[in-house]
Amino acid sequence: MAEYAADLQRQGVTLGLVPTMGYLHEGHLSLVRLLEGRCDLKAASIFVNPIQFGQDEDLGRYPRDEERDLELLAEAGCGLVFCPDAADMYPSGFRTSVEVDTLSQPMCGRFRPGHFSGVATVVLKLFNLTRCSVAAFGLKDYQQAQILRRMVEDLNLPVELLFGETIREQDGLALSTRNAYLSPRERETAQAVPKALEWARRRASEDIRDCTELSRGISSILTSRPEVRVQYVELVDPESLEPRNQVGERVLVAVAAFVGTTRLIDNLIVGPGSTMKPIHGVNV
Amino acid sequence: MAEYAADLQRQGVTLGLVPTMGYLHEGHLSLVRLLEGRCDLKAASIFVNPIQFGQDEDLGRYPRDEERDLELLAEAGCGLVFCPDAADMYPSGFRTSVEVDTLSQPMCGRFRPGHFSGVATVVLKLFNLTRCSVAAFGLKDYQQAQILRRMVEDLNLPVELLFGETIREQDGLALSTRNAYLSPRERETAQAVPKALEWARRRASEDIRDCTELSRGISSILTSRPEVRVQYVELVDPESLEPRNQVGERVLVAVAAFVGTTRLIDNLIVGPGSTMKPIHGVNV
Repeated sequence: MAEYAADLQRQGVTLGLVPTMGYLHEGHLSLVRLLEGRCDLKAASIFVNPIQFGQDEDLGRYPRDEERDLELLAEAGCGLVFCPDAADMYPSGFRTSVEVDTLSQPMCGRFRPGHFSGVATVVLKLFNLTRCSVAAFGLKDYQQAQILRRMVEDLNLPVELLFGETIREQDGLALSTRNAYLSPRERETAQAVPKALEWARRRASEDIRDCTELSRGISSILTSRPEVRVQYVELVDPESLEPRNQVGERVLVAVAAFVGTTRLIDNLIVGPGSTMKPIHGVNV
Repeated sequence: MAEYAADLQRQGVTLGLVPTMGYLHEGHLSLVRLLEGRCDLKAASIFVNPIQFGQDEDLGRYPRDEERDLELLAEAGCGLVFCPDAADMYPSGFRTSVEVDTLSQPMCGRFRPGHFSGVATVVLKLFNLTRCSVAAFGLKDYQQAQILRRMVEDLNLPVELLFGETIREQDGLALSTRNAYLSPRERETAQAVPKALEWARRRASEDIRDCTELSRGISSILTSRPEVRVQYVELVDPESLEPRNQVGERVLVAVAAFVGTTRLIDNLIVGPGSTMKPIHGVNV
């Protein structure tokens, strides 16, 4: 990959990258389309990155289907797919890590220590290996997006970042590879997540300014289903990710919840008079 | 710098970089010459990097002479010198750091917490800003060299590293910008540092295999001068920097000592039957 990227660079061919962990869905493919017109060669990587998983997490059972992924990426216009081995990415003696302070601490950072350092490190490696000039990430992983934006700026990386809107199922559930873990019954229950966010969006634009009240409302919608266990509901500044007490201009509402044993995350930016669209398909 | 580097890259012009903190001496200039034939454009940076200094260290009084530095670099064949401001390198909100585990822990790492993270972070930024394809560093900063080598490999940076031998004064003292802090009397006393290393080199090649015995001998040569305070004497594996008990193939002898208030470091690789040259100008 490194040699091929060096060749491309010498030829003046620019590469755009969508880093993924495979088992692709429409969210990933929308990111490939986002690269259209922004680079000469659209590329994706498929790599289930071990260093971003905690010890008790789902690294071992993370779903894989490389053959189907390669077909989908070819259809979406990818001219190159990079699928490294973990042993090549992290050979014995590997000991370097990238930390993005502060932004890694709230939300998922509180429950997944080391996760964002693992993400930042692998993304930096992928950028260096592919020498991409543009890369696309999804806003469903909102905290990740902000951390990578900061990393690119702080380290003066010559890479432009694009961010794609969350793609949702008909009933509003955000697309995620981990949705594959859900039983049919859990899948229905999972609707509570976009429902809670859509409730917050509507009430924040209508009558509720107090973040604690919004947070309490979200939690009660989620926990009205006994199979749901809330990990966090946070209302934060969309840039700094610092907690907000009142819905001012714009507030990020971020949620992590277990449905059965499956951990789902989702988020929405809300605010009074904001032009945020309702989540399509959700009736509150 | 970033825009100029992008232009150079588009034109297929390769850049070689010598990162420095200025107040240059022959050691730096020898690194510029090391780039000869390895790139199209020889470049240096001058930046006294605040994040690699501890709170009680000499950031405020670190010597500067940009005008003389620029002359010396031009004479040495540098076609470009990058002199950024600290406020541009670390704007408000900066929060990313690079850590190279294990290698940062022994030797200087024990006494300068955060130092090597500061070095790795700024070097990565300079690599990204200049898009250099080759960079040169001095082996007087041996631990730094090993850490940067590891970082480049671990992060898949498209940069070749070159390392220059330590350049010494007539009496064996390693060149260092910090030598400028020494009074004439301290300058003479500082000879004890290369003298102790040269003693270790000779005895390790002749009769002493035990690292504790070598370490004790080095310390006693250093402390025979009352103005010298030893910070560490370490005998370690030259790759892993892990402590060694016996002089096997090759052992790195690394020393840090204060002469008055000036901290000096130096090192030498020793070993039985090794072809290591004596330090020129030192009589033990």
